[in-house]
Amino acid sequence: MSELTLAVLVADQRPDLSGLADVEVRFAEAEQLPAALDGADAFLVWDFSARGIPQAWPRAAELRWMHVNSAGVDRVLTRQIAESNVVMTNARGVLDETIAEYVLGLVLAFAKDLPGTLSRQTEQVWQHRPTERLRGSKALVIGPGAIGRKIAKYLFALGLEVDAVGRTTRDGDPVFRTIHAQARLAEVAGDYDYLIVAAPLTPETRGLVNARVIAALPPNARLINVARGPIVDETALIEALRSGAISGAALDVCNEEPLPAGHPLWNCPNTIISPHMAGDFHGWRAALLDVFLTNLERFRMGQPLLNVVDKKSGYIS
Amino acid sequence: MSELTLAVLVADQRPDLSGLADVEVRFAEAEQLPAALDGADAFLVWDFSARGIPQAWPRAAELRWMHVNSAGVDRVLTRQIAESNVVMTNARGVLDETIAEYVLGLVLAFAKDLPGTLSRQTEQVWQHRPTERLRGSKALVIGPGAIGRKIAKYLFALGLEVDAVGRTTRDGDPVFRTIHAQARLAEVAGDYDYLIVAAPLTPETRGLVNARVIAALPPNARLINVARGPIVDETALIEALRSGAISGAALDVCNEEPLPAGHPLWNCPNTIISPHMAGDFHGWRAALLDVFLTNLERFRMGQPLLNVVDKKSGYIS
Repeated sequence: MSELTLAVLVADQRPDLSGLADVEVRFAEAEQLPAALDGADAFLVWDFSARGIPQAWPRAAELRWMHVNSAGVDRVLTRQIAESNVVMTNARGVLDETIAEYVLGLVLAFAKDLPGTLSRQTEQVWQHRPTERLRGSKALVIGPGAIGRKIAKYLFALGLEVDAVGRTTRDGDPVFRTIHAQARLAEVAGDYDYLIVAAPLTPETRGLVNARVIAALPPNARLINVARGPIVDETALIEALRSGAISGAALDVCNEEPLPAGHPLWNCPNTIISPHMAGDFHGWRAALLDVFLTNLERFRMGQPLLNVVDKKSGYIS
Repeated sequence: MSELTLAVLVADQRPDLSGLADVEVRFAEAEQLPAALDGADAFLVWDFSARGIPQAWPRAAELRWMHVNSAGVDRVLTRQIAESNVVMTNARGVLDETIAEYVLGLVLAFAKDLPGTLSRQTEQVWQHRPTERLRGSKALVIGPGAIGRKIAKYLFALGLEVDAVGRTTRDGDPVFRTIHAQARLAEVAGDYDYLIVAAPLTPETRGLVNARVIAALPPNARLINVARGPIVDETALIEALRSGAISGAALDVCNEEPLPAGHPLWNCPNTIISPHMAGDFHGWRAALLDVFLTNLERFRMGQPLLNVVDKKSGYIS
């Protein structure tokens, strides 16, 4: 095989690519990225924050393939890249199951009031409270993709009724009872106990969970976001949590990450803030690297790549 | 139907039995129980603490049936009662599913380090950590009864391997991969990530999770007890948690309930203490009452009672 030039965007941590034969590997932080992309055939976006790509893009004239090391490509997919001929692939599949486990853990934490139990424990207070039974509760999953389907499968196993919101209304789905068109979200939101955001961030989903949708949720509702912060209107959410208009929220993602100290979300009532780690299991980096290496092998053999992103929609259709 | 006399042991709270025709209902706290049992045909043990029964029992000469308002009958079943001709029934079935939900919530809380996330949240610290994936983990359920089977079903849906410990070794179980004889517990305990106690408290299970069993658990193991405190050696458990010999414990039940302020369990490392509420969902009291009322109707019609406890073993065989 002929020599191949691979640019790798890294930050604090870099993947072990020492085993690659006949590949010139150029590790680069944001500042070195323009030089690294110059003449590169392939580009691995290993650093999730994806800093520096728009600035370096004009130098990527030889680039044929880029692999984004996460399920969401929103931080990478500029209009320039969307309109280019570069094929984009992502890490779909690696984190689906662990994200679904995480969501199930959050749903159960709310239903069984685990935060209330832990805070009473620090006071050494034994206070019996009845909790919620999950069977028969209703969940609405925004994003009927691979992750949303895994979430639905687990919730269904616990006896919940699970619907979804997608681009268009669809019947006869093998997993979801009903898929509502997202234009109807505010109209249907009132029927659900759990609203779970698992959609890619695209122009269509940005701000989708807006003040009107949040106002439509019933008072017992909990919002769970394991996708991307900008899908949810945080100002409206904070207001709803503070006024008790909804019963809780769990955010693994925020508009600003890391969420800065002093931000009002940190101590909103009935709110669980976790640091964008829902899917990241021990060994996740190795598993993510495997996806890239499999595609690298296919790229070099001229075989069709896996996980090709539809750059128009912003996800794998 | 002829008039029937029903004694009801209550404490802080009493069931609504106002709709019963042709029944003389005698509500009694522990102190009034001897008089209430005098000449009673039936006895509802509504108060879970079951205080005062041994003292009052000599007056229960006419008693034919007693119903215990919980799944475990350990607080009621004295030798005198076991040897009497009084038929005992219990509340089996009402709380199975919600207890299983609760256990699943605890398993996920450990795997995803939800307590660590909540404590960092109070400090407003955003600190990413990889978490554990559940698929492929191994759980051992002590007590392959109705509750243990529900727990196994949910864990299995999440991809765990689930075995049980029962009185004797059994193969070909429809739910559990293997059922080990409890005599082998210390021998097999080292193979499991989660040890879940869901057995009735009987002479055979008292102290079953002893120092030897706890020492056999692997360092990553978590112990979950939703059954009865005295099944677990608390002293050995506290020692194992403090030394890091195991990775965590969640106790919904303790030797002494309520767990007194100042007890060392309250602030053991990686320990979740909840106030004996695992199965108690909103509406649980009404659901428990329904079980009794169904049996009361059968008792009066001379039909076989549901949920008859084998007073020799201490549970429904």
